[in-house]
Amino acid sequence: MEPPDTRLRIILTAMQLFWEKGYGSTSVADILKAAGVNSGSLYHYFDGKQALLLAVLETYHAGIGPMLLEPAWAGVDDPVERIFSLLARYRKSIVDTDCTYGCPIGSLALEIHEPDPPVRQKLIDNFSAWTAAIERCLAEAGTRLPAELDRGDLARFVLSTMEGGVMQARTYRDVGAFDACVRQLRQYFDGLLARPQVPAAH
Amino acid sequence: MEPPDTRLRIILTAMQLFWEKGYGSTSVADILKAAGVNSGSLYHYFDGKQALLLAVLETYHAGIGPMLLEPAWAGVDDPVERIFSLLARYRKSIVDTDCTYGCPIGSLALEIHEPDPPVRQKLIDNFSAWTAAIERCLAEAGTRLPAELDRGDLARFVLSTMEGGVMQARTYRDVGAFDACVRQLRQYFDGLLARPQVPAAH
Repeated sequence: MEPPDTRLRIILTAMQLFWEKGYGSTSVADILKAAGVNSGSLYHYFDGKQALLLAVLETYHAGIGPMLLEPAWAGVDDPVERIFSLLARYRKSIVDTDCTYGCPIGSLALEIHEPDPPVRQKLIDNFSAWTAAIERCLAEAGTRLPAELDRGDLARFVLSTMEGGVMQARTYRDVGAFDACVRQLRQYFDGLLARPQVPAAH
Repeated sequence: MEPPDTRLRIILTAMQLFWEKGYGSTSVADILKAAGVNSGSLYHYFDGKQALLLAVLETYHAGIGPMLLEPAWAGVDDPVERIFSLLARYRKSIVDTDCTYGCPIGSLALEIHEPDPPVRQKLIDNFSAWTAAIERCLAEAGTRLPAELDRGDLARFVLSTMEGGVMQARTYRDVGAFDACVRQLRQYFDGLLARPQVPAAH
């Protein structure tokens, strides 16, 4: 009998290897070896590498709240500061990995050149959950932000700031490239927050 | 005797395949077949796949002016509009590829997980040439932009906007994700251009 957590161990091993080496460079044999399971166990739970990728992407998606947002937002009540606290968490990941950090979702989105529809849908689910969290912060900021501001657009722009900043920090091996992007986003927010508000008609 | 353009044909074939399939998924055999050359010809010019990647990255770098900036900027004199004309060129690439477009440099920067120093240096050369071109536009905008604005930071932020917008458009298969990011960047510029200028202190 396999212990009941075999499936989870296989998923977490695949998650780690896809992140460290990339999806294409990781074989099922690599996963079996690193997880210490035999192929019968793996194929009992998963049809193959793509099924594992789907499970990895579901695990990331399920973790956005408890693994990413909740730790980033602990003790931070201001909704605008929550956005910058989330970005600061990525900064910490960059520093902690000697600037080799890559966002796992962003890396898979560019690495996998012709994703099958279920894979692409799960990449979308991850991006959409991330931007929805930003959009909730922007909604909570209420009248501090201009009424005419498109909060959905801005949430995507925040995601681009993170993804582009991570990509540049990783390439230059310098967190300063990420910091530069976040400083500019902060200046944009400062301008939005300082803009005189037009009172709602009637 | 090989015709004199064999080396270039090999490079352009590798460039196309790395872009379409990714670096890891492209074999030397794929390149030989697509270029219609034998392995003796390829190894006469290149030690292997990494040497080919270096040549591909040099070719992208050499093409930034003639292949990217000059077409994007034809007939556009305003330095701020040049920045948005460059982004509009990426938009066209997204639309022309049914939203499968990926920036070749950004994709390689995330796909290759442990780039050897010469590869990483050539990725840097490409990003730096791109941001230097943006920074020149920002310098040419002169006093229309705030004196205290860090133009180097803003150039990196523009690159993040492009890379993050391309990544999202590719994932959602929707150019609207790219457009959302560019609209936000435009609003940031509008705010910077509208800011009252502080006269230089003597």
